[in-house]
Amino acid sequence: MSTDLISQDTIVALATSPGANGAIAVIRLSGSQAIHITNSIFRGKDLREQASHTIHFGTIRDQNEIIDEVLVSLFIGPNSYTKEHVVEISTHNSKYIIERVINLLLKHGARAAQAGEFTLRAFLNGGLDLSQAEAVADLIASNSAASHQVAMQQMRGGFSNQLKGLREDLVHFASLIELELDFGEEDVEFANRDQLKSLIDHIHQVIRRLIASFEQGNVLKNGVPVVIAGKPNVGKSTLLNALLNEERAIVSEIAGTTRDTIEDEINIQGVTFRFIDTAGIRETQDIIEAKGVERTREKMKQARLIIYLFDPTQDTVVEVQQQIADVAQLSIPFVTLINKSDLLSVAQREEYAVLSPVYISAKQGAGIEELKEELLHQVNVANVQVDDVLVTNIRHLEALQKTLESLDRVFYGIDNPVTSDFLAMDIRQALYHLGEITGAVTTDDLLENIFSKFCIGK
Amino acid sequence: MSTDLISQDTIVALATSPGANGAIAVIRLSGSQAIHITNSIFRGKDLREQASHTIHFGTIRDQNEIIDEVLVSLFIGPNSYTKEHVVEISTHNSKYIIERVINLLLKHGARAAQAGEFTLRAFLNGGLDLSQAEAVADLIASNSAASHQVAMQQMRGGFSNQLKGLREDLVHFASLIELELDFGEEDVEFANRDQLKSLIDHIHQVIRRLIASFEQGNVLKNGVPVVIAGKPNVGKSTLLNALLNEERAIVSEIAGTTRDTIEDEINIQGVTFRFIDTAGIRETQDIIEAKGVERTREKMKQARLIIYLFDPTQDTVVEVQQQIADVAQLSIPFVTLINKSDLLSVAQREEYAVLSPVYISAKQGAGIEELKEELLHQVNVANVQVDDVLVTNIRHLEALQKTLESLDRVFYGIDNPVTSDFLAMDIRQALYHLGEITGAVTTDDLLENIFSKFCIGK
Repeated sequence: MSTDLISQDTIVALATSPGANGAIAVIRLSGSQAIHITNSIFRGKDLREQASHTIHFGTIRDQNEIIDEVLVSLFIGPNSYTKEHVVEISTHNSKYIIERVINLLLKHGARAAQAGEFTLRAFLNGGLDLSQAEAVADLIASNSAASHQVAMQQMRGGFSNQLKGLREDLVHFASLIELELDFGEEDVEFANRDQLKSLIDHIHQVIRRLIASFEQGNVLKNGVPVVIAGKPNVGKSTLLNALLNEERAIVSEIAGTTRDTIEDEINIQGVTFRFIDTAGIRETQDIIEAKGVERTREKMKQARLIIYLFDPTQDTVVEVQQQIADVAQLSIPFVTLINKSDLLSVAQREEYAVLSPVYISAKQGAGIEELKEELLHQVNVANVQVDDVLVTNIRHLEALQKTLESLDRVFYGIDNPVTSDFLAMDIRQALYHLGEITGAVTTDDLLENIFSKFCIGK
Repeated sequence: MSTDLISQDTIVALATSPGANGAIAVIRLSGSQAIHITNSIFRGKDLREQASHTIHFGTIRDQNEIIDEVLVSLFIGPNSYTKEHVVEISTHNSKYIIERVINLLLKHGARAAQAGEFTLRAFLNGGLDLSQAEAVADLIASNSAASHQVAMQQMRGGFSNQLKGLREDLVHFASLIELELDFGEEDVEFANRDQLKSLIDHIHQVIRRLIASFEQGNVLKNGVPVVIAGKPNVGKSTLLNALLNEERAIVSEIAGTTRDTIEDEINIQGVTFRFIDTAGIRETQDIIEAKGVERTREKMKQARLIIYLFDPTQDTVVEVQQQIADVAQLSIPFVTLINKSDLLSVAQREEYAVLSPVYISAKQGAGIEELKEELLHQVNVANVQVDDVLVTNIRHLEALQKTLESLDRVFYGIDNPVTSDFLAMDIRQALYHLGEITGAVTTDDLLENIFSKFCIGK
């Protein structure tokens, strides 16, 4: 663990959102001098003599000038978020007061906190592991039930706990094998190879399951990008409006009205779907529209899901099947959607049934609920349980993949004439990558990279 | 006091600013059920059994779903801001979490607080008087040292305390005089008329001083509107830029460039001066510019202070004196300012001395500090002491003026053949108006009017 980042400074920052619409603001300090520094500008009880988790009314003063009447909350380390002494000063929410109080604290020895520095300290002092710390930022950013749920799961340590057990078992074997190295040429085997194989097999399974969960986890955390595609004038903008339930895109009868891609999102049973409206796909001489078509193909490639919309009054079943074949080449899940279904005869419906489409009338709002169900079905999140541990972080995914590679080498080494020192090295490598996730192994760059994305005050 | 406004509901609101840039958010409840309601969604210690002014870590749950890990602060009534039970829940600052927690609290029996309702309860329950409650809003809105200082003074009760003593003495006399009424025709005098006169004389003095303080108080609270006036092209925009120390107004060599009035403010030793740049004053055929000149005259009338700027290379002393005579007609304090002073000869300076001007060179930034000192001098705030009680609220000013009128009638009544019942009525009237300030006397309309201007959560 890096020692450069462990600082003895007492840090201070505004912990609540800035802005004029609040009644109170909270200024937070952490560090060995937090209580002492606060006490030197506070008039009321002597804060140094009070118990942890207590609140004290008094005034903040600059010499004899009263800056504010405040409530001071005390958290005596290690019983705090950062495991250091933490003080929270609740002031009236005036920009002037907040600035005066923070400046006074700086004058009395505190230092302005950097982004994420409170949570960094919580991590460095063992209050959270790294994946939990990352989940704190995810939790604050969460804006749907699903993203909230996965962040909360991770912050509560569900993910870490799974890895921790595996790691401990693996550490045990690494020690035994390293013990063998000490005996050099005596050809002893302290580590039972069958048990080791069985352990690695188990870890392998768990990690594969975690890696497999990334797609679902990512869907729940970041939402699903959905492209609505189809020939011009089949009703793509009208469909988007029906989904968003408001007039967002400009709808007109003239083919090619929609040239810019418009992004918007809806929440279906807690999962966010980001709909990307696009220009229609067709051969065109219009340069501006040609650019729109190009963008559509690009967007389709980035999508997690494509809604391909047809107008049965424009195309025959054969033409539709041809278009579907084009879309299928992209290897992205797609939903076949027949618009203007109110204009279809029973015979036509039977004809289209081979496409297993969803029937809608975007204009009349018919079939929209069925479409939403199909979208949920496509992203396969229906059977995710509240307690399932899901990987949502690309950094974790990469570390898990590297762990798997190392474990494969260990597995190979056991069954092949590989010396114990290589075996030990590969196990250590697997441990290293597992440790990267929870922060048992870190570098300054990694920490800098993670915590600089936090807001100041967290 | 109104009883309609006293509600038994437990109210809840977000107390901190909404917005994505904070680490934590604070949700506040007040009312008899505040602790009970919070406890029903909190998993941790039983909050109903904890001491006041203590903080408790735990989770907020909707059934078995964890919404957030939180810190709950308890304030057991009457040891709280509102004098009722108050709970503050410190959550992660996620809009999703805040909404979920508040909705849960509503579901469990709380009601969404109205604007200012926490402070209204503090007032109705005797925690603050009305002028103190008004100062809470002023304090949050304060954005300069001066406005902060007067709001703090008022919130700490400086103003109220002055009135309280006077009011008690007056109540004493009112009782004695009303006692005389009980004895009807017996012609007794319980209230010593000389002592009453002397008391009223004293109250009169205090109230006159408070009324006189309004101008200064208003300057400190709301800042000083200053119009920079003068003929076209004398350098008004350049002066504004020099004062603001940045390129705000469009400066050009062409006369009449500035047509819109541009407002900006600077802070001189804690006092806010709002500078109003204007189009120049001259006869003009240009319709757009004519409108600008008209606006300038309007602005000058509203100003608390006028800076009249001259260009000695354009005008002679005699012309300048003529222009000054015009400005003097407005009866608004003004500062005579000679621009381009670097171009003046010693002889010219002697000539201009009769105008007692401030010499500047706006372009070179010379003389700006001297101008600032002169501005401070003009608003006469230099000798205001930190502890001076100043009236800053127009509502208070009006009530003080009405009190004075009633006292005048009492004074007249003592020396003239007026019966005790009229005397008693006038004293009661004076008491009524004094009581309006502190809220000893209120109406629903008055309270509605005051507290609806607060933000929700305060």
